[in-house]
Amino acid sequence: MQTTHIPCSSHRTMNAVDPSATRMFLEAQEAADCVRTQLIRNHTMIHSLGAALRQLSPRAVVTCARGSSDHAATYARYLIETRLGLLTSSISPSISSVYGVQQKLQQCLFLAISQSGRSPDLLAAAAAAKHSGATVVALVNAEDSPLAHAADHVIPLHAGPETSVAATKSFIASLSAIAHLLGAWSTDQALLGALTQIPELLHRAWHLDWTPLIDVLNTSDNLLVIGRGVGLGIAQEAALKLKETCSLHAEAFSGAEVQHGPMALFNRAIPALILTQDDATRNGLEALANELSQSGVKVLITDHAGGGGVSLPALHSHAALTPILHAQSFYRVANAVAVARGLNPDQPPRLNKVTETL
Amino acid sequence: MQTTHIPCSSHRTMNAVDPSATRMFLEAQEAADCVRTQLIRNHTMIHSLGAALRQLSPRAVVTCARGSSDHAATYARYLIETRLGLLTSSISPSISSVYGVQQKLQQCLFLAISQSGRSPDLLAAAAAAKHSGATVVALVNAEDSPLAHAADHVIPLHAGPETSVAATKSFIASLSAIAHLLGAWSTDQALLGALTQIPELLHRAWHLDWTPLIDVLNTSDNLLVIGRGVGLGIAQEAALKLKETCSLHAEAFSGAEVQHGPMALFNRAIPALILTQDDATRNGLEALANELSQSGVKVLITDHAGGGGVSLPALHSHAALTPILHAQSFYRVANAVAVARGLNPDQPPRLNKVTETL
Repeated sequence: MQTTHIPCSSHRTMNAVDPSATRMFLEAQEAADCVRTQLIRNHTMIHSLGAALRQLSPRAVVTCARGSSDHAATYARYLIETRLGLLTSSISPSISSVYGVQQKLQQCLFLAISQSGRSPDLLAAAAAAKHSGATVVALVNAEDSPLAHAADHVIPLHAGPETSVAATKSFIASLSAIAHLLGAWSTDQALLGALTQIPELLHRAWHLDWTPLIDVLNTSDNLLVIGRGVGLGIAQEAALKLKETCSLHAEAFSGAEVQHGPMALFNRAIPALILTQDDATRNGLEALANELSQSGVKVLITDHAGGGGVSLPALHSHAALTPILHAQSFYRVANAVAVARGLNPDQPPRLNKVTETL
Repeated sequence: MQTTHIPCSSHRTMNAVDPSATRMFLEAQEAADCVRTQLIRNHTMIHSLGAALRQLSPRAVVTCARGSSDHAATYARYLIETRLGLLTSSISPSISSVYGVQQKLQQCLFLAISQSGRSPDLLAAAAAAKHSGATVVALVNAEDSPLAHAADHVIPLHAGPETSVAATKSFIASLSAIAHLLGAWSTDQALLGALTQIPELLHRAWHLDWTPLIDVLNTSDNLLVIGRGVGLGIAQEAALKLKETCSLHAEAFSGAEVQHGPMALFNRAIPALILTQDDATRNGLEALANELSQSGVKVLITDHAGGGGVSLPALHSHAALTPILHAQSFYRVANAVAVARGLNPDQPPRLNKVTETL
């Protein structure tokens, strides 16, 4: 790959930073209002697009994204596969951008997700997909971007300017836009109805007390974040955000994959954060929490009263939307931990806002 | 998920263990002979299957595997996408095994990879795929297994009994079987010709001096393993093996993804292992090695004479096969590091040979 980014800041020790004054904090806090605006402004367009996708009846969906947006793509994948039974694959941009291979994507839906809409590898992959016959839908925050111009359909995120290097509200806005699209596409009135409550619930999720997680992360340099199904993408996002803002080695796993090898890591007193939602995956994740907790692992798990591990408070919503609320509660923790570790979450070491890769 | 495994061993401190007497060492060492046997025994069947797949002309490939086998599936994905331009997706077994959703997989090739052929989630996913119209091909070591019986076509790995919890020769045998299949399917004589040299090259790869990596891992609890394209699956495998056998938190990234967030981790003096091969991804990975090395990161990279970082010796083969050789050189290191850390690589904490998940 070629990269045009230059390491822009080194590790900075900040003294007496107010964690509620960082751009990360202020922008994450805006997520609820962004989603409220988005649901209103996109309403007509999303329902038209949903009808168009039913008409198109794609044979498969291909997602294309990097970083946080790729975790939103994981969320999209599980929503599409569980709601529509439609094969969904996260494309490797390198197949077109590095290897120069023309993939056969006739009658596929190509779903590109990007805050900036500018990364060269996404643009190359979207152009190649369109050339091979795919319909390109772009979820972008920057509506006047090359990716938006290249797409057949644009879903604006309406997240407003995001200046913190760490994406927060644009990630949450990606999740809500994906849920909106899936609700309209599959004409799922329960999902669409629950989605209207999400702005208010995001406000409340921001104020949930996840202090026990802060306490654990203040004394650990490693973490395993475990989710499953529609929650897996948010586990991935939590792990990346802790790397980025806290220089903390957090890694995400599905509740099944963690049992194939990674379990040995718990030998090293590494804690686990388990994110759950009210669907068929909950029992397995709670059983895992109990097993880990009983064997001496420090476990934090959302909404698991009476079981093993420390229960983090969570709000109840449609199971497919609960992960969006977890992301919002989590961002406040990540920001606080970064500041507590003497880092500025707005200026992660070695990173710029827009990383351009091929 | 439900799990039937029970933590079977705790952290054991071993004194004066001979690293060349572990089952992991002895079994990994057999990989070359396994592959030699496999290529001979599978020859006729693989070419028939290749012809059958050309006739079938699947609209997409779906891979299904867990743990090390899933990293072999990553390798398969890149071979299929770069050689055939065919959409390839790693399925989430939970879609069928937990969510109970029937996916639409008509005219898809379902590629299941498993050493034991017994994990319930793979069996459920394979049965669901077959029911929905997919053609099921199973790469299995245990020919008399439920997965083999359920498949339309079986590709035996011929790796022989594998008793170490850490898969080694069965992983390498999976890679060679995948390369064999792709060579036959795409009638790629260059790939097939190069494959005949792999047994001899595996013998030599086992004896390459990767001591610098041992030295680094003896003094680090974390590592980022970076690969790209056809090498990414082997980076994933290396990271998992270090978790499993060394309780070392190693995580794999593509050379592009590592620049979206994970870069901040290098702030913590975490070293990087970069695996390369002679294709369009090499320049980007070498540029990354140079950039990281210049900024103070301890970098080890295969076959990068004169550039940034410590160069690990590597053999030259067809670019699509080089990653197989890296796996073999790496396994010897992982075994040595485990023993040096006072662990028994044959008895990783909290793991059994067969992990059964849903």
